[in-house]
Amino acid sequence: MSSQKAFQDYYADEVSYCYGCGRLNEQGLQLKSYWDGEEAVCTYRPLPQHMAIPGYVYGGLIASIIDCHSTGTAAAGAYRAQNRAMDTEPALRYVTASLHVDYLRPTPIDSDLVVRARVEEIKGRKIVVSSELTAGGQLCARGEAVLVQMPEEWLEGR
Amino acid sequence: MSSQKAFQDYYADEVSYCYGCGRLNEQGLQLKSYWDGEEAVCTYRPLPQHMAIPGYVYGGLIASIIDCHSTGTAAAGAYRAQNRAMDTEPALRYVTASLHVDYLRPTPIDSDLVVRARVEEIKGRKIVVSSELTAGGQLCARGEAVLVQMPEEWLEGR
Repeated sequence: MSSQKAFQDYYADEVSYCYGCGRLNEQGLQLKSYWDGEEAVCTYRPLPQHMAIPGYVYGGLIASIIDCHSTGTAAAGAYRAQNRAMDTEPALRYVTASLHVDYLRPTPIDSDLVVRARVEEIKGRKIVVSSELTAGGQLCARGEAVLVQMPEEWLEGR
Repeated sequence: MSSQKAFQDYYADEVSYCYGCGRLNEQGLQLKSYWDGEEAVCTYRPLPQHMAIPGYVYGGLIASIIDCHSTGTAAAGAYRAQNRAMDTEPALRYVTASLHVDYLRPTPIDSDLVVRARVEEIKGRKIVVSSELTAGGQLCARGEAVLVQMPEEWLEGR
């Protein structure tokens, strides 16, 4: 997957400062999402400080990764649905209307977190994305996010 | 509220490293929760890097605050239900089983985020906590979390 350009690398500079997934946010997580067939994949290795209790990842990081990866998957899925490349105009960007995470088991901090997401539904400006987070091959969390297309004015020189 | 001890300040050292609310996690958010009548309140001022797009908070931070404040509120609520102080044994600590956040409007980054939470239901080892996040007096997000009592062995010298 490393030869692909990540979804987030297509975002205009003005919308590339997100703490979770902005490539220009130097203190952020700089999450990257890629297609793998019908699924979009995001892999992140937690830092030692991202713990809940020693040995396990805190829930907010899991929610953050699922959130940002879902907005990216929504954008990429919307381009796919229109048969357009992500560097074509008009730009399609999404914000989160709701996020649901089920924490199924404690998530070990000493392995890569792999989130695989899928576009479940596209309805007008709204997209539903489901996801699963695994660590060391074990399913640790499930997510469902509802994303809404960002108003055009947010993309115009904010 | 500042003369009160925060819920998180009662946690044993072993469970005080959470990135969101652990008082011993030097790189974390060090969230603090306090009773205000029937509600529990947590106030956090986002850092400049916690943006989604310039001027607004990223969703992962909102989810993180709601998550940690809900686990704290569950613990404090469980002690209240047992008419016990938080420094009495056996210790009651909670982990998140599920988290739902509705993002109602973009959340401005230049003001305090105030989350007010309420215990909705205590049923055996499970507690439901609802919450509202305001910024500058405007309601920006709603949360609902289901928390489960942490297994005793996690609290014993992990």
